[in-house]
Amino acid sequence: MSKALGALQQLRGLVTAASPSRGSVLELPPRRALLYVPGDSEKKIGKAAELGVDVVCLDLEDAVAQGRKDAARETAAKALAELSFGRSERAVRVNAVQSGHCEEDLEAVLSGATLPDALVDTVEHVRFLFDRVKGLLGPRLQGEAPPALITMCESGMGLLNLRQVFEACLARTNVLRLEACILGADDLQASLGLKRQQGTDDTLFARRWVVLHARAFGLQPIDQVYIDYKNSHGLQAEALEGRSIGMAGKQVIHPSQIAPVQDAFSPDPHEVEEARQLMQAFEEHQMQGKGAFTFRDRMIDQPTYLQARNLLQFAARVGQV
Amino acid sequence: MSKALGALQQLRGLVTAASPSRGSVLELPPRRALLYVPGDSEKKIGKAAELGVDVVCLDLEDAVAQGRKDAARETAAKALAELSFGRSERAVRVNAVQSGHCEEDLEAVLSGATLPDALVDTVEHVRFLFDRVKGLLGPRLQGEAPPALITMCESGMGLLNLRQVFEACLARTNVLRLEACILGADDLQASLGLKRQQGTDDTLFARRWVVLHARAFGLQPIDQVYIDYKNSHGLQAEALEGRSIGMAGKQVIHPSQIAPVQDAFSPDPHEVEEARQLMQAFEEHQMQGKGAFTFRDRMIDQPTYLQARNLLQFAARVGQV
Amino acid sequence: MSKALGALQQLRGLVTAASPSRGSVLELPPRRALLYVPGDSEKKIGKAAELGVDVVCLDLEDAVAQGRKDAARETAAKALAELSFGRSERAVRVNAVQSGHCEEDLEAVLSGATLPDALVDTVEHVRFLFDRVKGLLGPRLQGEAPPALITMCESGMGLLNLRQVFEACLARTNVLRLEACILGADDLQASLGLKRQQGTDDTLFARRWVVLHARAFGLQPIDQVYIDYKNSHGLQAEALEGRSIGMAGKQVIHPSQIAPVQDAFSPDPHEVEEARQLMQAFEEHQMQGKGAFTFRDRMIDQPTYLQARNLLQFAARVGQV
Repeated sequence: MSKALGALQQLRGLVTAASPSRGSVLELPPRRALLYVPGDSEKKIGKAAELGVDVVCLDLEDAVAQGRKDAARETAAKALAELSFGRSERAVRVNAVQSGHCEEDLEAVLSGATLPDALVDTVEHVRFLFDRVKGLLGPRLQGEAPPALITMCESGMGLLNLRQVFEACLARTNVLRLEACILGADDLQASLGLKRQQGTDDTLFARRWVVLHARAFGLQPIDQVYIDYKNSHGLQAEALEGRSIGMAGKQVIHPSQIAPVQDAFSPDPHEVEEARQLMQAFEEHQMQGKGAFTFRDRMIDQPTYLQARNLLQFAARVGQV
Repeated sequence: MSKALGALQQLRGLVTAASPSRGSVLELPPRRALLYVPGDSEKKIGKAAELGVDVVCLDLEDAVAQGRKDAARETAAKALAELSFGRSERAVRVNAVQSGHCEEDLEAVLSGATLPDALVDTVEHVRFLFDRVKGLLGPRLQGEAPPALITMCESGMGLLNLRQVFEACLARTNVLRLEACILGADDLQASLGLKRQQGTDDTLFARRWVVLHARAFGLQPIDQVYIDYKNSHGLQAEALEGRSIGMAGKQVIHPSQIAPVQDAFSPDPHEVEEARQLMQAFEEHQMQGKGAFTFRDRMIDQPTYLQARNLLQFAARVGQV
Repeated sequence: MSKALGALQQLRGLVTAASPSRGSVLELPPRRALLYVPGDSEKKIGKAAELGVDVVCLDLEDAVAQGRKDAARETAAKALAELSFGRSERAVRVNAVQSGHCEEDLEAVLSGATLPDALVDTVEHVRFLFDRVKGLLGPRLQGEAPPALITMCESGMGLLNLRQVFEACLARTNVLRLEACILGADDLQASLGLKRQQGTDDTLFARRWVVLHARAFGLQPIDQVYIDYKNSHGLQAEALEGRSIGMAGKQVIHPSQIAPVQDAFSPDPHEVEEARQLMQAFEEHQMQGKGAFTFRDRMIDQPTYLQARNLLQFAARVGQV
């Protein structure tokens, strides 16, 4: 077992003693694209369920006007109960704890026979959220896997507190399984006083900060929304940049954004092929008693081998092998 | 109220229970340019007071040679008592706590009838500074607003300890009101072993780090000095970069630097106009029960609205509307 | 004494009460290049000892296959005991604590009459490492200086825990003297999910993070390996970039990498000359009672003086003056 994985499992062992240990972030479901749909639009939800996107997120928060919150809860609960989402994961974005709407959101989406696969929350108040979910699910937590939780980070203080928030959540994986963290870039830009400019790297520091903290805890970091939804080149560039800095996926707000984003977060065929050859060469050298060797002018050792193996596993997961 | 603001107020509520809550960093006085003048030069202080710069900072520290400290204290105290600074805020940069000069600096500038509007300090020792100020101001703290405090961060350990320093200061806003944090780039470069190069981004990481921490606590981050004071293009570029990464202002060391810097940290007219139109459109949609909508091909929701409102408020504050 | 140094010494005073205080990171031995050689290759070790590299690191870990660990321990111990390394520092890279190999590694390299000058470790378990070393060295710790320790940081959690790891090590400098920290970029890329791309700055955030933490504690940050060892231009560019962001040295994996790397981490002659002139001008102004002055159109004060002095001291140390 590699050192990197060893350290990870150990840490998770510390903070998630109650949960089964997990080998790697790659065992989590792919969340390359996470599509928001307004929770009060039955028509848009119906369409979203057929798009083959990794995650459909029914939004009860920013996409729903104040006077439509009740309608959105009802529509979202009905969709969870009656609609088939195919291979897409069903997530619900509930309102922030201090908004006054969160509790009713949780009741609506957790009281049905079919639980959402994931909750997206801003988690300013971890304890409140977990206590409410525990109360609402009660004995169901004995028999069913708890819903996955995806937190949102969208303020300067949220960035500073990421570690504490993750540790607090991972201490109670019997209630909600924290698996990913979303960067909410618009709120964050306002909070950090960043000037809005397309094409600059104003959010790169914050995005790398989120990647560092999420990956350190074995979680999937989910990148910011690209709001100029008619600019497909810009979207593709930002998605590739996100993958390059360690993001596992990206929020999308329009069906046309799904394919470019899911492609960007999938391995290229030539990467898959190189990884396969590298693994084979590594295993041959290992059997001959050589720990490090040269492959295409690069020194190869255990960590490089690990990267290749991870890439192949993920390619298989998203149907590329 | 937006989530970002909500989280901010709450945190400040926790750490500054004794202070009146504050809506936003925009209620702080503008500190787009902070001009240093040697505390021992009556002539330079007199000229600085007439330049219309947001902050005039009488420097008792680096700009004053060891043998001139007493003269500088006397000159600075006299200027505070007798000179009109117009709309400029009067700040005093005291020597570091461990220099042996700090205590006398505080006595000189806090014993007069007219207190400085802001103290700039390096705050290696928060407790010492606050205790001394409390002792010197005594009963005056009942009747007058405590002076504002601007801390300096200028070492690697200073960066690592920013959060703890801010929390320690914000716990005692009845003595000094922490409102801003200056990045002292020259000391910082020495401390971090950065190679001095004009035009590279060697300090960008540290600057973004300061922005993140300051903004998280609702404070104004003040950017590094641009020392090549004859290069106006370089100055303008660095000032715009500072604004883009979230700085609220920049230290200046020459009168010719004031206008370009204050311009760089003010909104452009077309930004003001776009913000006005965006706010209007948002409020119309909100009344029609729509939470998110399209404006110039961008998806607009609450956070975007908040950014536009902030921009308009600030423009009014610096006389641009 | 400058504020930056003052803050540093004070902090170190807090965390390393038992150790002699130290003026600056420049009093540490130069570690511009750190060359790995497989611990089981007597021939390669012999050659490495003659190359004039600042540090020769006998690798018992990644460069040694599982079945060769015993042979490597024996060969490394023999080299430490019998071979002259000239002016090169002798370091040993032991296996990670949780690998099951670490204890035997320590026994092999610490039981000889000649201790290694430095141990390189991943330090997931600081306490275990220090306890074992203390047990193995026992009474020798009274008479001899404890070995220097260079830790490796190579996972997201490792980055998040840098401060805690440094503080834990620096509390026990009577057992091992923590002096430097290596960035293990390959493992780190796997841990953070970074996409492998030559020529991009995927690891820059992590590298700056390591620099910030190491420099804050007065330690030397040692940069990542450049694995494409036939590309000398790429190597030179990355080495210069490392120096520019504050790295003190770089790991190397091939003899041909030593000279370009050690050059990159040494001052240029014109820098040395400028520093000399600047120091002279500063001291003249200081004697005339002027704290800040203009030198080649730049405002010069104490911090700038400090940078110049540091540069001259280091140049002397590596034989450039």
